[in-house]
Amino acid sequence: MIFNAEELLTVLQDALERDDFDSAIQMIEALRGPDQARLFSELEDEEQRELLPKLDLSYSADILEDMDDPETAKLASSLPIDTIARIVDEMEPDKAVDLLGDLTEQQKQDVLARLDDADGLRPLLIYPDESAGGLMTSAFLALRPMMTARDAVEALRRWSPDADDVYYLFVVDDDKKLCGVVNLRTLILTNPESFIKTIMDPDVLSVTVGIDQEECARTMAHYDLAAIPVVDEDNIIMGVITYDDIVDVLEEEATEDIYRLSNVSDSDLDPDSSVWKQLKGRLPWLYLNTITALFGAWVISNYEQIIAQAAVLALFQSVVAGQGGNTASQNVAMAVRTLALERVSSRSQRRIIFRQLYMGFLLGLAVGSVVAFGVYLWRGNLYLSLVLGLALVANLSLGSLVGIAVPLGLEKIGIDPALASSVLVTAATDSMGFFIFLSLAAHFLQYIQ
Amino acid sequence: MIFNAEELLTVLQDALERDDFDSAIQMIEALRGPDQARLFSELEDEEQRELLPKLDLSYSADILEDMDDPETAKLASSLPIDTIARIVDEMEPDKAVDLLGDLTEQQKQDVLARLDDADGLRPLLIYPDESAGGLMTSAFLALRPMMTARDAVEALRRWSPDADDVYYLFVVDDDKKLCGVVNLRTLILTNPESFIKTIMDPDVLSVTVGIDQEECARTMAHYDLAAIPVVDEDNIIMGVITYDDIVDVLEEEATEDIYRLSNVSDSDLDPDSSVWKQLKGRLPWLYLNTITALFGAWVISNYEQIIAQAAVLALFQSVVAGQGGNTASQNVAMAVRTLALERVSSRSQRRIIFRQLYMGFLLGLAVGSVVAFGVYLWRGNLYLSLVLGLALVANLSLGSLVGIAVPLGLEKIGIDPALASSVLVTAATDSMGFFIFLSLAAHFLQYIQ
Repeated sequence: MIFNAEELLTVLQDALERDDFDSAIQMIEALRGPDQARLFSELEDEEQRELLPKLDLSYSADILEDMDDPETAKLASSLPIDTIARIVDEMEPDKAVDLLGDLTEQQKQDVLARLDDADGLRPLLIYPDESAGGLMTSAFLALRPMMTARDAVEALRRWSPDADDVYYLFVVDDDKKLCGVVNLRTLILTNPESFIKTIMDPDVLSVTVGIDQEECARTMAHYDLAAIPVVDEDNIIMGVITYDDIVDVLEEEATEDIYRLSNVSDSDLDPDSSVWKQLKGRLPWLYLNTITALFGAWVISNYEQIIAQAAVLALFQSVVAGQGGNTASQNVAMAVRTLALERVSSRSQRRIIFRQLYMGFLLGLAVGSVVAFGVYLWRGNLYLSLVLGLALVANLSLGSLVGIAVPLGLEKIGIDPALASSVLVTAATDSMGFFIFLSLAAHFLQYIQ
Repeated sequence: MIFNAEELLTVLQDALERDDFDSAIQMIEALRGPDQARLFSELEDEEQRELLPKLDLSYSADILEDMDDPETAKLASSLPIDTIARIVDEMEPDKAVDLLGDLTEQQKQDVLARLDDADGLRPLLIYPDESAGGLMTSAFLALRPMMTARDAVEALRRWSPDADDVYYLFVVDDDKKLCGVVNLRTLILTNPESFIKTIMDPDVLSVTVGIDQEECARTMAHYDLAAIPVVDEDNIIMGVITYDDIVDVLEEEATEDIYRLSNVSDSDLDPDSSVWKQLKGRLPWLYLNTITALFGAWVISNYEQIIAQAAVLALFQSVVAGQGGNTASQNVAMAVRTLALERVSSRSQRRIIFRQLYMGFLLGLAVGSVVAFGVYLWRGNLYLSLVLGLALVANLSLGSLVGIAVPLGLEKIGIDPALASSVLVTAATDSMGFFIFLSLAAHFLQYIQ
């Protein structure tokens, strides 16, 4: 269903090869905006740089709006300032501000100095990218309570003609304070002489300009809103966020969680990102994990003599540590996701922790008994099997406990549970696993040798 | 910003305790629909069962629509068939069908037999929950090309009065085939005598009824659509999917990926799910991982004599295996997410695989040299350090290669890369890590002892 860029790409690149820009432009302009952007982002950097300024300005603007942020910034940076300025003037305010925020300070000032409507963008520039203010667009139409429906339709007619994604119209009082919302359907169906005051819904939800984009997205998702107004602390309307922005935010946040759980700290990375960017986003985590792994090695070093006497222990220590780690990761994943979706209430936390301790015990019994039986068949040593089974029960119970307590605890002290959970939890289950298994084995060493 | 149920919950439960249903009902009915559902789902099962039938039917319907699917089914199953039927009659068709699908076959038939509008729901029942057909609602308004704008407004007025989430109106020809789309704004601003034919956009995107819900959601997200029509293979319109459904789908798919990457196979699970459900969703994965861990133990068992002679090897084998696993997990996460967001083009796959092999080599050098140096300081054995460093370079390179090749390969053969990647990849990095480190160590054994 979704547009596949690959077939067109070869034809387009052939045209560019021949310097046949007319065909290239025609080919691109025949596509829908998001498809133009997708095709465009498959081109080589130099091809992009050459082609973009040759397109009609409104198409160049659409393409920069729809490409991924880092790509957009890279492409824009490579263009002459005047060209960027002309394109930015055509972009929707929220996207234009995103782009400006990704340029260097110098480039940003240079572009702003050349814009036709720099004053329309400046207020948006002060909000962090990841806040409601960073998401909102300043291009919205505000109605007044004493307008009639007919006035409102007239205002809508005069107002920005290409914004076809208007879902609700917001109503403000004389102080620009938000006081109601009218949906388009009501406006169509009502008597044209009705006052907005009488047809608006005064119970209008809004978000304040400084709140985090994720909270904003969750609010819109929870109430199924296609658009939400953004207000300052005095309830004065500053902008509007539409549902297409929140889809992006929710995707971004999910990517961030997945990456953090897998020890990648930069959610803009993909397998094709530059080597240097990947090193920066991956290596610190590997080092951190290496330190905890060396701590595990130190735990084992306390039992070096015992392993020298019963090398068979070296076979199974990792099984105990690893399965504890797997159990803990299951809990971390469930906790991180449940917290992200705001499905957990704090009064049930104690019950959840106890339940997970019990779960870990059951999982430990299930895994421990099977492993003990299997290893008994393999090695024929009852004590080894029992020690292994017991160690698994203990480490899976503790792993399950740590796997739920760490993310819940991190959330409580305001740290993203996805960020630190997997390192902390693996460190714990590894060290505990080695310690439990080897210290138990030390007790029964004479029977295991 | 989002409604917090906890404060109200105590008051509500107190009211229920005293059998003061009037207060309880008043308290709930004062809230917005999604908040009613959230508060309701915090109640005990028995409280829910008792309270729901006492609410106004439209409220009960809203609550069942907004609660999570498994909760909804559980609550509905516990009510008398007549009560469910009366509530289902009030629900939106897509949500009603979701609920019916979660009931037992017997309950479903009993409810259908008692519905006022069973015929409106039956066609929706044949589509799988996770397809476009399972997401769509049959409650939509279709315009005809030869209607005037005035006729269209009149049709909108007569049509289902509480559906205020109408964003586009779709146009069908005499054979009910989809032929255009009109947005509400155009309809408001146009001359009332214009024919729909002249104001509609004939280039309308649609999805076919059988496609997977994720593809459907990605199409809407890619084109920023607030609604998309669903058609059969003859382009006859069957229903409409709105953006609030796709937000749910995208969240669901993200949860599924996170869970699968962390070895939890049922994405409805949360840390508070029943013990039996958790065992079913978690234990099979732990068993699978245990088998691969025992395979790792078997690899080590080939070097048991060597470990008996140099027990120090038992300290570091897991460091090599574990860091290979971490490197691989980073790749798996990036690959799974990039594939899910459809950001990867197949012509760049070979380049990506080479790049990741190179990345693994660099990460291996970075981690290997630091570990070798640290372990040299700790144990003072140059050969041990070199073997460890080399093994890390080799295992991180291979881990990185496997971590990208496995998910890309699984995707290519049509298996969800999130589903099997982590098990396969961990199995590989563990066994390879043990093998590389111990076989290298065996070569230099005389210098390590």
